[in-house]
Amino acid sequence: MKILAFDSSAVSASVALTEDGKLLGESFLNAGLTHSRTLMPMTREMLDTAGFNLEEIDVLAVAAGPGSFTGLRIAVSSVKGMAAALNKKCIAVSTLEAMAYNLPPIGKYTVCAVMDARCKQFYNALFRIENGGIRRLCDDRAIMVDKLSGELKDIDGDIVLVGDGANLAYSLISETDTNKNIQLAPQALRYQKASSVAAAAFEKYKKNETVSAAALMPSYLRLSQAERELAAKNKGENK
Amino acid sequence: MKILAFDSSAVSASVALTEDGKLLGESFLNAGLTHSRTLMPMTREMLDTAGFNLEEIDVLAVAAGPGSFTGLRIAVSSVKGMAAALNKKCIAVSTLEAMAYNLPPIGKYTVCAVMDARCKQFYNALFRIENGGIRRLCDDRAIMVDKLSGELKDIDGDIVLVGDGANLAYSLISETDTNKNIQLAPQALRYQKASSVAAAAFEKYKKNETVSAAALMPSYLRLSQAERELAAKNKGENK
Repeated sequence: MKILAFDSSAVSASVALTEDGKLLGESFLNAGLTHSRTLMPMTREMLDTAGFNLEEIDVLAVAAGPGSFTGLRIAVSSVKGMAAALNKKCIAVSTLEAMAYNLPPIGKYTVCAVMDARCKQFYNALFRIENGGIRRLCDDRAIMVDKLSGELKDIDGDIVLVGDGANLAYSLISETDTNKNIQLAPQALRYQKASSVAAAAFEKYKKNETVSAAALMPSYLRLSQAERELAAKNKGENK
Repeated sequence: MKILAFDSSAVSASVALTEDGKLLGESFLNAGLTHSRTLMPMTREMLDTAGFNLEEIDVLAVAAGPGSFTGLRIAVSSVKGMAAALNKKCIAVSTLEAMAYNLPPIGKYTVCAVMDARCKQFYNALFRIENGGIRRLCDDRAIMVDKLSGELKDIDGDIVLVGDGANLAYSLISETDTNKNIQLAPQALRYQKASSVAAAAFEKYKKNETVSAAALMPSYLRLSQAERELAAKNKGENK
């Protein structure tokens, strides 16, 4: 069962191909280029070099959010387009949940997945690594850094930060708190990765959690800036 | 400081670009194609898509062995060629040591890097993950599986198998021994990866452990089959 998985939820972009859970190929870029220009050529090159074509893929998976609104739209739209054209099933994965698969289920620790949501907020979810598995501790959410910092204080054992917001969260939390249990994931495992999206999607595939191309949607977790401004404007006018 | 790193020591092949330890791009293939055909096109595509050229690279790093004789020759020769042409410094990294960087330095466990060396042997080295760092426990070596299994019995705590020999070692060890501490690294972190070669090379760069293109050599750890047969033949003739 072949999964082609995509992530362009933040500054990095990547595409990965797995077969029955085994990683056959991955291209990852974190060089600050526009994903609209890089994602499809990367995909074509990766499949070509690996000796596969899109028709052979069983399921298309995507990190559907939270994340950069533009980034999510690029990956989700690309997947919707390919899936509609080739009549393939899709799997939408939480960007935060996918990142829990960046790290191995060895020993006991807590994964704190953080993405920079601007406006002093982080997109966040917490996962417990224990007994060789991953257990979600809370829903995906947008959270202020001081609230997150307070929650982390109550967690026993090592806490590992992953995600494009990890560096910022680490310095903000360290400013006010000397929680010695908190550490950054190593560089190569810190950012959103399509191979982790594929790993999370494989678990969902086993539970039949596929959707059609038409039903695949990004999950923004909050209104876009334009929508927030419109809502604020409307509220003002209705006074 | 930009490192372009290569691995084609076994069935997978990969190339990665890092800057001051940060992963900017990586292409990884584990689809059983010939590395002589894939490694250079992968490199060109990865650099093109990331918006860099070879001239901008500071150091070329390579997993120089142990590994498949042909695979090592392809990566080492490619790096020697590029480095000689562009007058760049090189860093040779142990394939086994690089794999210790596949896994994060979180908690305490032992990394057992194993590559299939055929003839009932594994190329192996052991590393201790502790206090946020990686400590080598023994030199790179070729070892029979029963000897390795015996050594692992004396190790306390979790033991994680990485490398293209991990699956085979895991089943062979499980046949004769029910060591519950031994587990396989997750699929996406199990195989040789250029990003880990770059991470290991970055540590060597800090210690000035670079070599010239001319001095870069593969490290086979044992004689090739042809050399073993020649030695056996010569021994017979000298009787």
